Amino acid sequence: MALTHYPVLNKNGDVITSAITNLDLHDISRVSKTYGVRSFYVITPLEDQKVLIERIVSHWVKGAGSRYNPKRREALELINIKTSLEDVKEHIYKKEGDFPKTVVTSAKNSTKNIGFDVLRDMLKGDHLYLLIFGTAWGLAEKCIAEADYFLDPIWGNSDYNHLSVRCASAIILDRLFRRQE
Amino acid sequence: MALTHYPVLNKNGDVITSAITNLDLHDISRVSKTYGVRSFYVITPLEDQKVLIERIVSHWVKGAGSRYNPKRREALELINIKTSLEDVKEHIYKKEGDFPKTVVTSAKNSTKNIGFDVLRDMLKGDHLYLLIFGTAWGLAEKCIAEADYFLDPIWGNSDYNHLSVRCASAIILDRLFRRQE
Repeated sequence: MALTHYPVLNKNGDVITSAITNLDLHDISRVSKTYGVRSFYVITPLEDQKVLIERIVSHWVKGAGSRYNPKRREALELINIKTSLEDVKEHIYKKEGDFPKTVVTSAKNSTKNIGFDVLRDMLKGDHLYLLIFGTAWGLAEKCIAEADYFLDPIWGNSDYNHLSVRCASAIILDRLFRRQE
Repeated sequence: MALTHYPVLNKNGDVITSAITNLDLHDISRVSKTYGVRSFYVITPLEDQKVLIERIVSHWVKGAGSRYNPKRREALELINIKTSLEDVKEHIYKKEGDFPKTVVTSAKNSTKNIGFDVLRDMLKGDHLYLLIFGTAWGLAEKCIAEADYFLDPIWGNSDYNHLSVRCASAIILDRLFRRQE
């Protein structure tokens, strides 16, 4: 999984760097741990934001938080801080010897989307996959255009699809990895 | 849906009143709106906490937030602040002429649990249902014992089930209400 803070859009469609949200780190790392994700990459090019993430993660992985709540440690250990999506791909290549196929998630419909069931089947194969989430008003067009796959937006049972990235990541991972009964 | 801040447990198993988390209000109301939930009750007996919730909701429903982000308004409009679970049941009775069946969610296994598919079928009937979520380390025993039904915990594909209530509510509503393809 990767959570991207640049390049993302603001409300007006401008490309911006968004700020870190503390609970994104906690919630999405806990979701990742629940569904067996191997690494949760948090992407920002801003040095002061990287320092902030490092401080938060360190508190829960090595500091007082790790003794207070060991279950939280197990989750936040999955976090890797990177400058760009390119750096994430390089990191995966160095670790695994192969580049991942990239899958972009979005609240928008596209004719090139693939369904949850299709991706669920693909994930059973041997390829590495990197599931990319945006913050703010979503991933910038450039980031979407470069992806290998585009996952369907989440629809509940209404015409409202404005979920937080925390809840969207939870639903998407459940749809992709939940054990079938 | 109801989000309970009392009676809930702390880490040591003592019954406490937990503090409001701002993003619980946003995330769970957005999840509620996505899945057609009729009302999102936020329960706390503390007057100062009720005032805080009222201020947050008012900003997004009537204040500057409602103009900045109308989609957020649609979600937070679902919030009803109540003192206790009894008050929630009374409120539903006055509005609907019937008391709801209560369904407790928990990360713990119990022999009395019902599965997601069973509840999904039950929800297609004419009864009113109130889905109850706890904060902190979960609902107090008393609250669980009084419920009509106990929903299975969420299992992903690992032995880790320590999700935030925000993400748990998202996954549960998706499992219960997602349109079948």
